[in-house]
Amino acid sequence: MLAPEVETTADDIAEMEVRGAATIARAAADALEAQASESDADTPAAFREEMRTAARRLKNTRPTAVSLPNALRYVLKEMEGRSVDDLRTSTLQATGEFRDQLDRAQDDLGAIGANRLRDGDTIMTHCHSTDALACVEAALEDGKDIEAVVKETRPRKQGHITAEQLREWDVPVTMVVDNAARRYLDDVDHVVVGADSIAADGSVINKIGTSLLAVSARERGVPIMVAAQTLKLHPDTLTGHTVEIEMRDETEVLSDAERADLGDVDVENPAFDVTPPRYVDAIVTERGQFPPESIVTLMRELYGEGGTEPWAEE
Amino acid sequence: MLAPEVETTADDIAEMEVRGAATIARAAADALEAQASESDADTPAAFREEMRTAARRLKNTRPTAVSLPNALRYVLKEMEGRSVDDLRTSTLQATGEFRDQLDRAQDDLGAIGANRLRDGDTIMTHCHSTDALACVEAALEDGKDIEAVVKETRPRKQGHITAEQLREWDVPVTMVVDNAARRYLDDVDHVVVGADSIAADGSVINKIGTSLLAVSARERGVPIMVAAQTLKLHPDTLTGHTVEIEMRDETEVLSDAERADLGDVDVENPAFDVTPPRYVDAIVTERGQFPPESIVTLMRELYGEGGTEPWAEE
Amino acid sequence: MLAPEVETTADDIAEMEVRGAATIARAAADALEAQASESDADTPAAFREEMRTAARRLKNTRPTAVSLPNALRYVLKEMEGRSVDDLRTSTLQATGEFRDQLDRAQDDLGAIGANRLRDGDTIMTHCHSTDALACVEAALEDGKDIEAVVKETRPRKQGHITAEQLREWDVPVTMVVDNAARRYLDDVDHVVVGADSIAADGSVINKIGTSLLAVSARERGVPIMVAAQTLKLHPDTLTGHTVEIEMRDETEVLSDAERADLGDVDVENPAFDVTPPRYVDAIVTERGQFPPESIVTLMRELYGEGGTEPWAEE
Amino acid sequence: MLAPEVETTADDIAEMEVRGAATIARAAADALEAQASESDADTPAAFREEMRTAARRLKNTRPTAVSLPNALRYVLKEMEGRSVDDLRTSTLQATGEFRDQLDRAQDDLGAIGANRLRDGDTIMTHCHSTDALACVEAALEDGKDIEAVVKETRPRKQGHITAEQLREWDVPVTMVVDNAARRYLDDVDHVVVGADSIAADGSVINKIGTSLLAVSARERGVPIMVAAQTLKLHPDTLTGHTVEIEMRDETEVLSDAERADLGDVDVENPAFDVTPPRYVDAIVTERGQFPPESIVTLMRELYGEGGTEPWAEE
Amino acid sequence: MLAPEVETTADDIAEMEVRGAATIARAAADALEAQASESDADTPAAFREEMRTAARRLKNTRPTAVSLPNALRYVLKEMEGRSVDDLRTSTLQATGEFRDQLDRAQDDLGAIGANRLRDGDTIMTHCHSTDALACVEAALEDGKDIEAVVKETRPRKQGHITAEQLREWDVPVTMVVDNAARRYLDDVDHVVVGADSIAADGSVINKIGTSLLAVSARERGVPIMVAAQTLKLHPDTLTGHTVEIEMRDETEVLSDAERADLGDVDVENPAFDVTPPRYVDAIVTERGQFPPESIVTLMRELYGEGGTEPWAEE
Amino acid sequence: MLAPEVETTADDIAEMEVRGAATIARAAADALEAQASESDADTPAAFREEMRTAARRLKNTRPTAVSLPNALRYVLKEMEGRSVDDLRTSTLQATGEFRDQLDRAQDDLGAIGANRLRDGDTIMTHCHSTDALACVEAALEDGKDIEAVVKETRPRKQGHITAEQLREWDVPVTMVVDNAARRYLDDVDHVVVGADSIAADGSVINKIGTSLLAVSARERGVPIMVAAQTLKLHPDTLTGHTVEIEMRDETEVLSDAERADLGDVDVENPAFDVTPPRYVDAIVTERGQFPPESIVTLMRELYGEGGTEPWAEE
Repeated sequence: MLAPEVETTADDIAEMEVRGAATIARAAADALEAQASESDADTPAAFREEMRTAARRLKNTRPTAVSLPNALRYVLKEMEGRSVDDLRTSTLQATGEFRDQLDRAQDDLGAIGANRLRDGDTIMTHCHSTDALACVEAALEDGKDIEAVVKETRPRKQGHITAEQLREWDVPVTMVVDNAARRYLDDVDHVVVGADSIAADGSVINKIGTSLLAVSARERGVPIMVAAQTLKLHPDTLTGHTVEIEMRDETEVLSDAERADLGDVDVENPAFDVTPPRYVDAIVTERGQFPPESIVTLMRELYGEGGTEPWAEE
Repeated sequence: MLAPEVETTADDIAEMEVRGAATIARAAADALEAQASESDADTPAAFREEMRTAARRLKNTRPTAVSLPNALRYVLKEMEGRSVDDLRTSTLQATGEFRDQLDRAQDDLGAIGANRLRDGDTIMTHCHSTDALACVEAALEDGKDIEAVVKETRPRKQGHITAEQLREWDVPVTMVVDNAARRYLDDVDHVVVGADSIAADGSVINKIGTSLLAVSARERGVPIMVAAQTLKLHPDTLTGHTVEIEMRDETEVLSDAERADLGDVDVENPAFDVTPPRYVDAIVTERGQFPPESIVTLMRELYGEGGTEPWAEE
Repeated sequence: MLAPEVETTADDIAEMEVRGAATIARAAADALEAQASESDADTPAAFREEMRTAARRLKNTRPTAVSLPNALRYVLKEMEGRSVDDLRTSTLQATGEFRDQLDRAQDDLGAIGANRLRDGDTIMTHCHSTDALACVEAALEDGKDIEAVVKETRPRKQGHITAEQLREWDVPVTMVVDNAARRYLDDVDHVVVGADSIAADGSVINKIGTSLLAVSARERGVPIMVAAQTLKLHPDTLTGHTVEIEMRDETEVLSDAERADLGDVDVENPAFDVTPPRYVDAIVTERGQFPPESIVTLMRELYGEGGTEPWAEE
Repeated sequence: MLAPEVETTADDIAEMEVRGAATIARAAADALEAQASESDADTPAAFREEMRTAARRLKNTRPTAVSLPNALRYVLKEMEGRSVDDLRTSTLQATGEFRDQLDRAQDDLGAIGANRLRDGDTIMTHCHSTDALACVEAALEDGKDIEAVVKETRPRKQGHITAEQLREWDVPVTMVVDNAARRYLDDVDHVVVGADSIAADGSVINKIGTSLLAVSARERGVPIMVAAQTLKLHPDTLTGHTVEIEMRDETEVLSDAERADLGDVDVENPAFDVTPPRYVDAIVTERGQFPPESIVTLMRELYGEGGTEPWAEE
Repeated sequence: MLAPEVETTADDIAEMEVRGAATIARAAADALEAQASESDADTPAAFREEMRTAARRLKNTRPTAVSLPNALRYVLKEMEGRSVDDLRTSTLQATGEFRDQLDRAQDDLGAIGANRLRDGDTIMTHCHSTDALACVEAALEDGKDIEAVVKETRPRKQGHITAEQLREWDVPVTMVVDNAARRYLDDVDHVVVGADSIAADGSVINKIGTSLLAVSARERGVPIMVAAQTLKLHPDTLTGHTVEIEMRDETEVLSDAERADLGDVDVENPAFDVTPPRYVDAIVTERGQFPPESIVTLMRELYGEGGTEPWAEE
Repeated sequence: MLAPEVETTADDIAEMEVRGAATIARAAADALEAQASESDADTPAAFREEMRTAARRLKNTRPTAVSLPNALRYVLKEMEGRSVDDLRTSTLQATGEFRDQLDRAQDDLGAIGANRLRDGDTIMTHCHSTDALACVEAALEDGKDIEAVVKETRPRKQGHITAEQLREWDVPVTMVVDNAARRYLDDVDHVVVGADSIAADGSVINKIGTSLLAVSARERGVPIMVAAQTLKLHPDTLTGHTVEIEMRDETEVLSDAERADLGDVDVENPAFDVTPPRYVDAIVTERGQFPPESIVTLMRELYGEGGTEPWAEE
């Protein structure tokens, strides 16, 4: 029997009331914890089956979110024991550990990323990433002066959120349209972005426009740092799977009036694009920084070689 | 004494009621024609002085528009004769010729650019350029099927104008945000853009975002064609002058509400950027196509070596 | 005393009656199995010495084949025990496991490589590689439509074998001479090739012409996938050894008549060339996909750090 | 009335009995000379019309050969006078001059190209080009030692002709398959190739495989010299025309037996490909050497701006 | 109580009487050995505290030397036991092992690097590196003929030391100024340099001028090998720390007379620069060769994930 | 009969008492003027022969100096007339004009180059070039603030002369060794260098080290401006001649003591190297700025197509 919190959480994730890679991961861990606590399974097999069912229920809400299966995988991997009690105990310990790591991960990552920034540096940002901002925050706490050129990031202008956060920290901000990126790269010491997910071949999947920026940053001699907790590593890609790119609604691109004026025009609105590893200088995680070409080693260390999913029906 | 049309035209240009490189050039030629027709100068020297004064009056309205001095230069260069009558006749002939060339230039350019496009090609456009569109129109008239990926071109979204024009010609259009350019370059056979002006070192000054696109187009193996009438060649750059980049108002970037939310954030809104010649495959003019590195030869042929301006006070 | 099958197998490999990396590896494992089964050694030391002798006999037949020592290394590494019986048992188990892995490896690799291909993709192939074709086959089984541009691959035209195989699977094939590769790269979504061996520095040793293709594929923006079972990883290169390139007979290049016409001309006919890792997007193995720069980690995991060979005389 | 020689020459060109850019050009000039000599036109207009008709007859035999219209254009441009006699005289003078230039052109070009080669250099060749070989011959005559790596140049193996010629001059030759090019570039000081034609955007149209070689030559740091008489400059490209690439018969690629084995496989066999100017270091003509990006200036100087053809019907 | 040898060694390192990465490491191990031998601590806690104190004393002498903390880390990591005796024994064993490894490391590295060199190769060197020279020495011992182009390496001209060593081994040497590097790269088969330290993102920190050379070596197609014992891996960089670049005295750049002539001129004299991994083909260590992008895996294997230092005060 | 000044000048040039491209050119023109003034030739043919002899005498003093033949060519080209008087008059007028142009050339060039520099820019210099410095001086006169990073330029340290000149103009100067160039490129807006000569293929021959700097400047995104009067254009290269690179004495590289220490070491000390046009953004001359790929057009305009030299014996 599924615990009610599993259902509620699943619905919340599906309806995007729970959003953001870390928030989703935490919610999934909490739901598994509830399931383990409340389970009335009377055999180890039944308990295991319940946990897998709960995991599948959660997993299927957003098939493309990478932190969700990573959270489930983490917990189910640690679930072990020969009695229901032992299974429950190990599961609860796993969910606790997972939350602890989640709590520390962004801080740890921020401290590492901050070490790459020097006093007086100007960074350029794309979209809004709390991991990327954690690096800036840690640098500020280290007493470094940082300035920022913030790309507005059409179509959803998440650059505004980034700008507001930076202004709160008293970072001088220059806002530019995305088209102006190459011109302002000459004034910039680092490009700092987050990631939606990271693939085994070292590709960085991030907000649409990242790859356009990265190619020009390399051309202009500006290093590119990707800040991404290990939650963003995408174990499915170990087996060659391509990360599916979400296509979003055209209303993000055209207002109703514009739509009416333009008539019979297709609009394509992909949420993300893929930056090849050769345009990225370092991926900063809470476990250290890595060249993108070696992130696969960390991915295998954390999530195994890929293959059978721990929540698969037996 | 300046002809009233000179004053009117000068005011119209200054207030941007007359806009667009070709339109401004034509208006300037018309104004010089009016001045020559209506002049009551009684000595050749006085006639010449009047013409120069008129040219200066027109020139100073928009110091950065390149077609304006090019028009003035063309006409004054042809003004010759030992009597007022001869001077007037040669001037009127020059303005007539200039208009004729202007009439033909975009068609000629379009026919040349169209020859670079093959049946079935997909182009990508940036901003709105009647020169670039003339190439597409001529290709369609040649019976070629052309499709287009149109970048919306923040902040002013001139991509919408381009899309509407292409739809009028039944060209299938896919509209994307600027950030999506690299992803869609894989589906594209040519990038076709216009130019605000072209410098002696082969640089292309065009709508902000052109250079970002061009760098990625080269990286993706997609050739870049710049369509630009010779009016856009910038003779001042022969003497090393950098083209001044207009900085536009931040209201193009932020709405009042956004401005209020963001607080103390600088906004920089350059209208143009500079694409180095090494990222451009061909500049298509009404006088033929050229690698950007040799456009300086055409510039010198048409406008001389640079130096003293024909309207300079003596 | 060497088992007769060891001698036979050694001869067959030496005379190239047994060919192909996997086939050689399997034959070597079978020969070691025969040796272990038939051994009449009466001390563990004698048994070990016999096995090492058998391995040396096999190894020396083709000093440059990489799958051969990898097979021997795998089996000898697992051989352990304090009695002859234990040694025999562990050896037989190792040869069995090795064959099982071999059976699965190409399928596993194919499934992983197939995940990189999308429905509707066109691939370009060079030479003939069953690993590369396994990726295509798996993609077809996943219901994807794949087309192929097949390079004929002078001098031995193995492209014909590839073309025949693909036609059997109803893949539309366009055959081109090697010289036409760059022109057709514009119509291609992936270059898919195999490997003769892979070095610790990430270099891919493959049929002559691979590096020429890879450099232009990168220039044209086409990703390059190398399909190679882990048998192809070359542990000698961990210690800096360069992979020796086989020089083949000039009769593959010139017919007798051509030879006679040309007179005193040298012919060089290297079988392979070396593609630097920076031109390869992913190496697909049965253990997952890897950026070429991190294959060294897998190599060390599978084959140790290099150094003393398990078949060395004591 | 067309002179019989015009008809004969036209037939010979059409049937490829007259081949090679310079040979065709000379034959066309000879035919125009015959037409001028034998004309019985009694008015200048009739004479002119006859000459244009002859030119059209010749031109239409091989629409894609570039030296043919260049020869016709040269002669007709010089034809002038107010009487039939004057027209005839000027035409005969033009054909004579044209032949003289043709006689000298390859020698002049060879001398210029030879100056780029140093004593002890090794060159790499692709296909067979008498212009390219003229550079080697002149270098040898200057007493320089030259060695050559000759690519066989599938499918038609014109490398054999090159090798034979070089051996006749005692140049040490190493023959390699095209696929081996990148490996041997490390031993090479210059790539020296000819051209089928050269476009106004600086692109070099030459035997299929040239662009593949050029991209890798740039990557390996080896300079690329294109030897091409000005007859090869393609004035149609001034107006954006793309050079049409001849697709040749599949029998050059597959023998009948191979064809039978392969079954339902498409074969594409383009004769030429297009090398962008950025991969070429110098174009050597009889009028001097040029960076490819400035060849357009020479093209305009020699053949005008493009546009109306002198043989067009009036 | 600190052993006297700890103090002496600390002073010697601080005053640069002990120099060179390996020499410093060995001295530090010796000092820890002395401390362990001579300790009169009577509790395990006291012993540990003494050892940490000794380590801190040594560490603080040259905060930027990377081999020093690596030696300390190695020894302290192995120190274990529940009694003072056990702690002492394990420490002495660790220092012994460390010295053994140090003894072998350069030979092992040299043998590996030598495998990358072929008979007849010409190398180019920058600065003076015993690790780089160990590769040459091993190649010579393998019977290979090696020649060298030696850059003098301003400002301190360590190239002279390299040249003298190579001459002692009868290697033909051509000495050039640093500015001549690109010209001589055409005659060179490998660039072989050492490293001051290597960062987790694959960057190589080495004598100023290395990155300038590496960029041109890549452009000229010459592979770059970095010879560096694992002592040079910089574990602090795992947590994003940038390697601090020592700025040296201007007297190395200007003589007193030059200084006087030049007047008010700033001189900047950085000892090292940073070469991005994409310009390096292989890092050769005593543990094998690695692409620079995967050195992070070796670094984590040897020195852990970074974080708390074993000598930190408790 | 040769005028005494011709002999004296020839000797002075040969012994390098007259040095610097412009100074040599002026001295040659003065010598020709003296010859024309003092000639007692009594026939035009004799006068012409005398002038040619004088030119040959001067030319042969330094066969590799490019400004010398350019000066002689300029004057002899203008010498015309049917009487000795006319020949003399035209010659004297030519020498006068030539000197006038020389007087203006550097100023004109400086003004043009200055237009490329912006207020607040930091430039990097290599060697010492009065043409390059003229650009800085003109920028300063325009009121722009300029800072400079000055490479010392081993072996002859002409950077010191540059630094002294810049300090005289109150330009803040940072002196670095050549090896530090890449590190400081990040702080630099323009590389500004002179040229020894410029070839028809757009190559820039300049002080050894220029090409090393240019390659890294392009990699770092820093534009490179070459300041060179048209005197530096090398018309011999129109016919493919390679510019001969002077090899200088090893005493510039090694002191006697160093030489003694090093023993049997070759030293190569080339004075110049060759920078390909693709690494140069603009060549600034007194006739305007040019992309290096189109300098050939200016060269042909000024010096003809190459071929027979006007001083050749008849």
